[in-house]
Amino acid sequence: MAQASVRDGRRERGDASRRAILAHAIDAASVDGLEGLTIGRLADAAGHSKSGVATLFGSKEQLQLATVAAAREVFIERVVEPARARSGRGLARLCALIPSWLDYSRERVFRGGCFFAATSAEFDARPGPVRDAIMAASSEWEDYLTISIERAVEQGELPGLDDARQLTFEIVSFLEAANTRSLLHGSDQPYDRAAIAARARLTGLGADPELVAQIGRG
Amino acid sequence: MAQASVRDGRRERGDASRRAILAHAIDAASVDGLEGLTIGRLADAAGHSKSGVATLFGSKEQLQLATVAAAREVFIERVVEPARARSGRGLARLCALIPSWLDYSRERVFRGGCFFAATSAEFDARPGPVRDAIMAASSEWEDYLTISIERAVEQGELPGLDDARQLTFEIVSFLEAANTRSLLHGSDQPYDRAAIAARARLTGLGADPELVAQIGRG
Repeated sequence: MAQASVRDGRRERGDASRRAILAHAIDAASVDGLEGLTIGRLADAAGHSKSGVATLFGSKEQLQLATVAAAREVFIERVVEPARARSGRGLARLCALIPSWLDYSRERVFRGGCFFAATSAEFDARPGPVRDAIMAASSEWEDYLTISIERAVEQGELPGLDDARQLTFEIVSFLEAANTRSLLHGSDQPYDRAAIAARARLTGLGADPELVAQIGRG
Repeated sequence: MAQASVRDGRRERGDASRRAILAHAIDAASVDGLEGLTIGRLADAAGHSKSGVATLFGSKEQLQLATVAAAREVFIERVVEPARARSGRGLARLCALIPSWLDYSRERVFRGGCFFAATSAEFDARPGPVRDAIMAASSEWEDYLTISIERAVEQGELPGLDDARQLTFEIVSFLEAANTRSLLHGSDQPYDRAAIAARARLTGLGADPELVAQIGRG
């Protein structure tokens, strides 16, 4: 029993350290990319020894994969959960997810904007487990949007739409372009452009203007 | 005279080496980013000595800036010039520029797809001269699209449009999302999605369907 609780205590401390280091890692990777992550730099930033960080994560690739997994959790918590909590399924969900994503980027939940936009562009031409993990998280987000769009179609809320995946492509295009342009120009205006574009597209497909108005500013 | 032609000969060889090294640099940066460029790696790839490359470019930042300038020239040559050669001003130009950009990305003029999409995402959160140079080249491209759109509006070719910059934002959103997704998933389908999105948007603004059809496949 005593031995077990010593072990549990060590594991808890290890988990807390791991979480603190991963929070640094996500933030750093959003600015400098996942290739810029090194066990040495992270140890400095988080106030741990290099060997301590190495023990917690193993190889650089394992650290990169753990960072992607942690960023995915933050994304779900900051973008998906709040939208899910305040909206019904279908068009209402879609019209809650779009401003939720724009807020996540605008508020710089990660210093370098959307983690997945940054690391997708970094790894898109580099096959391997890290690219696969980024791709899986991005696909999961796009699938979630698509399910809401399909539901909206079933509920008769988008009478002009015949291809849910096409609309998903267009919406994520607007979101990611807003993220990159806002960072590049140090301006909030691209988020307004993305909101205007999404509203115009949904209105053009026959969506209820009251729900579409929730997409907000711009 | 003899001295001058020795100097000219040296300068010509220097220019040819510079161009060959920059061609490697653009290609490498499109995959691994501009931060991944090192004088040592480029020297290996181009079959030059490290000191020779250092003499031609100076610092790493100077090399990065020269790479951005060279990529800008290739972009103009591959995307802008062919569209300008085969189209009149206004909507016809816009409907030639869009497939020209999609071809440039699809044909992997650079191994990692669009150089500016890759390096914008890499540098968007890192202020400095390299970010400024990437931003200037990207703005130049967006300004060129906007001029064509404004001309189309003046010519009465986009009766539904009241904000040229908004349409520019939407079009570049589709192009860049197609580039990233094609690389990430190893698929051509995102280019079709971008073409469908651009055609639908322009048709919705009242553009001539025959011109819009030039945007091509998908």
